[in-house]
Order: sequence, then C-alpha cells, then structure tokens
Amino acid sequence: MAKNSSVLQHSYLQLAQQLRRDIARRRYAPGERLPSVRALAAAQGVSVDTVVRCYRHLEALGVVQARHKSGMYVAELEPAGRAPAVATAAAVAKADNRPAPPPPVELDRLVSLEHRMTQLYALTTQQPLQWGLHLANAAPAWYPTAALARIAQRLLRSQPEMLGTYPTGSGLPALRSQLAAWMAGYGLDLQPQELMVTHGSTEALNVALRAVARPGDAVVVESPVYFGLLQMLGNLGLRAIELPCTPSEGMGLEALEYVLEHESGVRAVVVMPNFQNPLGHTMPERNKRRLLRLVEQHDLALIEDDVFGDLSHTPHRPQPVKAWDRHGRVIYCGSSSKSLAPAFRLGWAAGGRWHARMESLKLSTSLAAPWLEQAVLAEFLRTGGLQPHLRKLRERLAQTTPRAAEAVQRHFPAGTRVHSPAGGWWLWLELPQAVDALALLRLAVGQGIAFTPGVLFSTTAKYAHYLRLNIARPWTRELEQAVRVLGQLAGGLQHAAGAASISR
Amino acid sequence: MAKNSSVLQHSYLQLAQQLRRDIARRRYAPGERLPSVRALAAAQGVSVDTVVRCYRHLEALGVVQARHKSGMYVAELEPAGRAPAVATAAAVAKADNRPAPPPPVELDRLVSLEHRMTQLYALTTQQPLQWGLHLANAAPAWYPTAALARIAQRLLRSQPEMLGTYPTGSGLPALRSQLAAWMAGYGLDLQPQELMVTHGSTEALNVALRAVARPGDAVVVESPVYFGLLQMLGNLGLRAIELPCTPSEGMGLEALEYVLEHESGVRAVVVMPNFQNPLGHTMPERNKRRLLRLVEQHDLALIEDDVFGDLSHTPHRPQPVKAWDRHGRVIYCGSSSKSLAPAFRLGWAAGGRWHARMESLKLSTSLAAPWLEQAVLAEFLRTGGLQPHLRKLRERLAQTTPRAAEAVQRHFPAGTRVHSPAGGWWLWLELPQAVDALALLRLAVGQGIAFTPGVLFSTTAKYAHYLRLNIARPWTRELEQAVRVLGQLAGGLQHAAGAASISR
Repeated sequence: MAKNSSVLQHSYLQLAQQLRRDIARRRYAPGERLPSVRALAAAQGVSVDTVVRCYRHLEALGVVQARHKSGMYVAELEPAGRAPAVATAAAVAKADNRPAPPPPVELDRLVSLEHRMTQLYALTTQQPLQWGLHLANAAPAWYPTAALARIAQRLLRSQPEMLGTYPTGSGLPALRSQLAAWMAGYGLDLQPQELMVTHGSTEALNVALRAVARPGDAVVVESPVYFGLLQMLGNLGLRAIELPCTPSEGMGLEALEYVLEHESGVRAVVVMPNFQNPLGHTMPERNKRRLLRLVEQHDLALIEDDVFGDLSHTPHRPQPVKAWDRHGRVIYCGSSSKSLAPAFRLGWAAGGRWHARMESLKLSTSLAAPWLEQAVLAEFLRTGGLQPHLRKLRERLAQTTPRAAEAVQRHFPAGTRVHSPAGGWWLWLELPQAVDALALLRLAVGQGIAFTPGVLFSTTAKYAHYLRLNIARPWTRELEQAVRVLGQLAGGLQHAAGAASISR
Repeated sequence: MAKNSSVLQHSYLQLAQQLRRDIARRRYAPGERLPSVRALAAAQGVSVDTVVRCYRHLEALGVVQARHKSGMYVAELEPAGRAPAVATAAAVAKADNRPAPPPPVELDRLVSLEHRMTQLYALTTQQPLQWGLHLANAAPAWYPTAALARIAQRLLRSQPEMLGTYPTGSGLPALRSQLAAWMAGYGLDLQPQELMVTHGSTEALNVALRAVARPGDAVVVESPVYFGLLQMLGNLGLRAIELPCTPSEGMGLEALEYVLEHESGVRAVVVMPNFQNPLGHTMPERNKRRLLRLVEQHDLALIEDDVFGDLSHTPHRPQPVKAWDRHGRVIYCGSSSKSLAPAFRLGWAAGGRWHARMESLKLSTSLAAPWLEQAVLAEFLRTGGLQPHLRKLRERLAQTTPRAAEAVQRHFPAGTRVHSPAGGWWLWLELPQAVDALALLRLAVGQGIAFTPGVLFSTTAKYAHYLRLNIARPWTRELEQAVRVLGQLAGGLQHAAGAASISR
C-alpha cells in the first residue's frame, strides 16, 4: 500500500470536493438523501471504502448528516461558504448543549496563540490538500518504514505478551542504553539513567518548562520560533521574550545579555542551536559556549531542542550545547519524530539538575511511553540501522534543497528572499513586504497547497510577509509546478497591493 | 517467550542479588575487576544475556561501574546496605555535577506526594520481586495479546508507510468512531469529534484539570483515592479536598454539599463512580444523578475517571455519570490500559464544554498518540473483539476475587477487614490499627512480595494501616502462599506492637 495510500486519500478528497460542489449547486438539496455508499461507488467507479471515507469526511465538516439506519443526507442548514457553516454548527451545538463539530479550518484563527497549532493541523485533517507543505515532516518514503515494520513484526511474534504488561519507569532500559550510546557519537556523555523517554519532544519541552518555571515567569525564545513552543508557553502561563536570530549567529547574545540584566522573572532560555526551526541555521560553536556561560552566570536553565540536529545537509553532525554542560544546566530534548519515525511519537530528555523533578512531572502527565515503539527503536539502534538511514536522508535533503530554492527564485516575485538552510527541511521565505502570507495561504489552500505562514512564528506580526515551505520530498515536475502556482499567487497579491496603493 | 520472560527476569535479578551479597562479604573488593560476561555466564550456567542484564542492573544501582574497554568493576565506594549506597551515589554525582544514578527504592519516600508514584513504580524496576501485587494491572495472560499482535502485524504488513506519517489532530478518525459506538453501548451519546485520544487516562485527567483549574484552586477528590491523582494535583499546584467514600454510597454527598457551600476556589470534582480505586465500589445511580446536579448548581466541572467501568465482576456494566450529562459539565475519561492493552498507553476524553480548551492543551503537551496502537485498537473494536474478551476477563475476576478474600481472612491476623470489590482487581484491606502497612511492605519486599500501602491513598496518614492488594491473576497455591506470608508478617508486626505497648 506504500503508493496507494496517497492515491486513495486523494481520491476520497476529490470525491468529497465534487460532492460539495454538487451540494452548493443544489444538485442535492438540504435534507435530501444522498446516494447509498454502493450506488455512489458504482456510479463513480471508486471503491466502497473511498465513498465511506468521503462521507465521513463530509460528516465531520457538517456538510452531510448520517441518519440512523436510513443513510446519508445533505445537512439541513446547508453551509453556503465557510462562515455560515460554522455558525450553523455552533447554533446546533448550542441548542442541544453539545460542543460543535469541528468546523472547516478558519485560517484567521492561525493567528490565535491558543489555537495556532490546532488550526495548522486542521489543515491536514479537514482540508483537501494535494501539497501539504505546512508541517515538519519528510515524505513517508524517506523513512525506513519497511525496516521498522519488520522489527515490529518480529517483536510482536516473539513477545506478544509484552502488550499485556504495564510500561513503568522512565523508559525501556534497552532503549535508554542505545540512546546514550548514539548520543555519545556527537559529544554527549550521558548515562542511560540520566535519560527519560517521552511522548515526542513536545512532552520533553513541556515537562522541562514546568520543571523550571511557574505561571507568570518569563522564558527567552528565538525569533522567529517554532509556533508549537509559543502555544505551549501560552498554555503554561509563561511569558515569551522573543530575541531575534540571524542565520550566521543564531540568537543574538548581546540582546540576551541585555534582557537578562534588565528583565525580572526570566527562568529559562529555550533554543534550537542546530538547524533552527524555521531558519535552518546552526549557532557557531563559540556562541554555544558563550550562551552556556550566560545561562550559568544568571542561574537559569537552558532548554535545548535538538530534534533537527541529525538532519544536517552535510555529513557533519553539529554538537549540542549539552556537550559542554558540566553543571547540569542544560535540559537536552531529542526525538525520533523528525529523523526516523514520525508515527512513533517518541522523544527523550536529559534533565540535568532538574531530572528528578521532570521524572515526577512526566509520570503524572502521561505515565510511560508505549512498549512497542520503544522496543523497535532500541532494536533499530542496536542493529546499526540509524547511521545508513541518516546518510541517505541527508543526501536527499542536500539534493532537494537547492532545487527548491532555485525554483522559488524563478517563480516568486522579485524581492522575495530565500533563506537556504544548512539542515532540516524547510525554506524560510521573505516575501515582498506588501504580500501578506496569510492571504497567500487562503488562495493557496483553494489550489490544494498549504505552507506555514510566518505570522505563526512570533506573537507579533513581524513575520506577516514570511512563510515556511517544507520541501523534504522528491523533487518532481509536479512539485515545481506547485511552487510556480504559489509564486504566481504571491505575484498577484503584490500586484493587487500595488494597484490599491496607487488608487489610494 | 510468554513464560520465559518472567523466568529470565527472575534469574538476572537472582544473579544480581548473589553478586551484591558477594560484594558485601568482600569476595569482590571495592575497585576490583569483576568476571567478564562470558566467564560469569559459564561459571553460573546462565546465558550471556542474563549476565549483561545483571551487570546493567547493578550499574544502575551504583553497585558496579563499567570502565571503557576494560570491563566491570566493583564501585570504588562500596555501598554497605541501602543508605550508604545512596549517599555514595549522591557524593559521586555531586563531585562531577551529574544527577545521581537511581538509588534502590526508598520505601519511606512513598509517603512523599511528589515521589509516591515514582517510588511505587521503582518497586517494579529496581527491586527483585516474585509477587508484584502493587500495580493496577492484570496478569499479561489475561489480555488478548495474541489477537492484538496479529492485528498489528497485519497492519504493519499492509501499511508500513504509515510509520512515516505524522499523526495529527485529536486521534485517528476510525478509532474515534469505534470508541463512540462502543460507549453508546453503555449510555454515552457522543459523536466521534467530541472525543480525543490521549496518552492513557493519565494525560486525559491531566489535561482536564489544566482546562478547568489554575494553580492555587481546589479540587474535590474521593478518599481513599488513586495516589497518581494526588501526585498530579500536587504537581499542578492544585489543592486536594479529600471527601470520605463508603462502599455503599461512594463519595459522601452531604459532605460535598457542605464543602461546596463553605470552601472557596473549588473548580472541579474528580470521581471514579464505577469500581473506585482502591475501594472497588460503584456509586448508586441516584447518587450519580445527585452528584451531577450539585456540580451544575455550583458551576463546577465533574471529571469522571471511568477506567475500571468495563471490569465489573458481573455482566452488568454500570453507566457513567456522563450518561446523564445534558450541559457538557462532565469531562469523561477512559482508557484501554486496564481492560485491554496496558502497553498501548491509549486513553480518551470527552471534554464537554471544555473540549476545545483540552484539545489545545493536549496538543501542546504531547501532540498526538502513536499511529499503530490507535489503528490496532480501532480494528479490534471494529471486528468485535472487545465484548468476548471482557466477558472472559470478568469471569476470571469473579472467580479469583472471593478466593483471594477468603485467603486473606484465613491468613491475616484477627481484626483484619477485607473490602471485596464489585469490579476491578483489588482487595482493600484494613489491618488491625497497630499494624503499619509501610512497615509490612518493608518486610514483604524482603520476601519478594509487594503491595500498595494505604498511606499512598491520601495526603493524610488516615490509611496507614490499610493496604491494596492486586489479585488479578490466576489463583494458585503459590499465590495463596504469598498471601499467607503477608498475613504472617502482619501477625508478627501486630504481636511486636502489642509487646511494645505492654512493656511501655
């Protein structure tokens, strides 16, 4: 099914789009019964499964309604466009005191600090997209999924009884040993018991922040910065102080020094020194050391998010700040979600002097990670699978990135600047000032293309004309075409803005 | 490996115990090199793997130290008994600014609110136990692990590429649909989009509490109550108000009314109305309704933990309070960890009016649950596997429970009271007042038996002479013997206490 899955997904979404058009054109009226699953499958020449998925999708959007034992109907209050659909769902929900069914993505809510992640992910689940270039993932084919699946099958065959045991403690001992050995390869001197396994780096960061800061405290972050971190800080009641980053230096350390001397209540600095999201740069080693000294002087925690560290476009794997940490000041967070197996949801943390506190918090946040993924990852590491996989992945990234950057230069309006990364899988684009990236996203989603608008990467509107474009997939004519469509839409917006400013 | 795994585990721990004895008796002096893995394996007639696990275990305890390329050595500062071992490890850690390696379980720390879970789980990972009757699990053989493993293997064979996709959103749509259908069977009228998939009920509870309360607020809980909830409240800065429960009525509702009228800052009531942990009782339906009315009147959230609801000892599955909730006041939390697959770490929540807030918090706490477990659970539900499994599990519980209760009556000192549960898998024992359950645990662990001392189930010392005994395993002569040993140790403590009070 390696190839079929994307085809399948596409075809149910295509069918859903077609049905929405038919409904909008009143081919099916509100309240009218829709064709049965079998009838529609036969009529469209698609599988029953495709129709079922299509109907479920439309049901989730509130476009159709299932009635018990009688089939599928066009929703009574037909959503004419997006806003009324939401209002309708909310009204229905209010009438019977239920939460509303999920509305179609409201792009404006991407700006909301509390909902930016929710809405960005909703792009994936609620929107028919051909090119979802908005997330932090590579093409599924770029992961060693077959090898991982084989290991998993072997473990399930030989130890099925493990599914009936309760995972306890801070992670499978075998995994922690393998991780410690792996990390030793890039300068981290950690014992297995200094590591805990978490639900992705998200949980690692969350628990780290809770261990070192309390609601009302401040945390220094990079700017632009991973939007998930901003939503997390908001949800924890922590104040984000955003310090500008440059591709050559990383977080500005003079600015940091100033802030640490003048701001009160700062408890931690969160950084991604290797292949920063979204800039893709790496902080020079001298800056990493200086950052560590600053943190020590000011009695702070340094929370280091190193999830992209393995994704260098060269064979050189940069060291994390943790490599120089002698006083347990650095909380190191890693993950297998970027480099190896997104669906595993496994991360890890070495909490330094806050490790015991983090273990307690982690235990009462989610207890333990599932057994199987931990065991598979341990075995994959033990049998030496990671190194050759990463070599291939890095080569692919090194091939695709310049091509994508060239395509952007070719197709985007003059004045667009491309930040080419040294690692990771994005381009960070600065559009001409007049082009609002959120407006561009609205148009692009209509064409089945999504990216991450810059406004997500700050609590300010500073990056409103920036965007992040995930290009970690094989470079094809179709992808070039998608970049061209984006460029043309951006050009159109720039033109419209120019015309508007002239007419004013 | 179904049987071998426990045998294996036992034998490496036996070897570790033997080595510790040898070290204590100076057969190996501090700093001395220990036999190589192969030599020790040959000498002891065990596998190389057993020796490796034994050495890793001792290394984690700080008893031995690995030296690069040179083998395993007795730790320089030899731990003579438990306390010095800890002091030594801490001293070493301090010297090089590293966190200490995990010490052997310090039973006294079970009383600490922040560490009670950590320490209880440490019993499993750091202590050689023959009868670990201290956790909330059934015997692995009582779960349909073979069926689940088969489904997982099938999915991995047909869709390995799913391991390369990023799970987003609030859970696999197929799983949410199946869960909604399953819950409809016991009175819950929920749409799939009103459910979110979580990392066990632990995450569901955590996110629910964060959605409805802020640090400094108060939350009403049952007494005795699941210790994990107390640690969670402590970690969230929430104040627990413990209201006594009786087996016949559940949480005392007069007391609740009084508290709600007189205490300020109460934001939620957390209850386990079906087969409460540790009492095992079910709240009568009229009380469930009255509890819901009270919560409505006082504008609170009711957080309902229903993880044991499926584990009735009769075919009757009691309804959760959520079944009567018309105003979205009840946050319903469920899990597959108790009834089906502990190693999956999957739970779910229906957050009512707080659902959107919970989704945002969940996303920035751990993003999403892993794909495979969600897909397996959905398929197991879809193919009707749950009902027959639960029937068998309930029968087994109904058979074991009275036998275990009889054995306690037979072997424990006079004055011991057994609370026999209507569901779930524990006995809750009230020992004679003079017997301290923590002292009993200390003796029992020496005999390879663990249980949960009552002191964990409250922030007060109210249940110091109570204990919870997990009896969800086949009733055998050996298990009866373990109960007998416990009873004799309890008798010995009672006798000693009596002698002490006479001599005073």
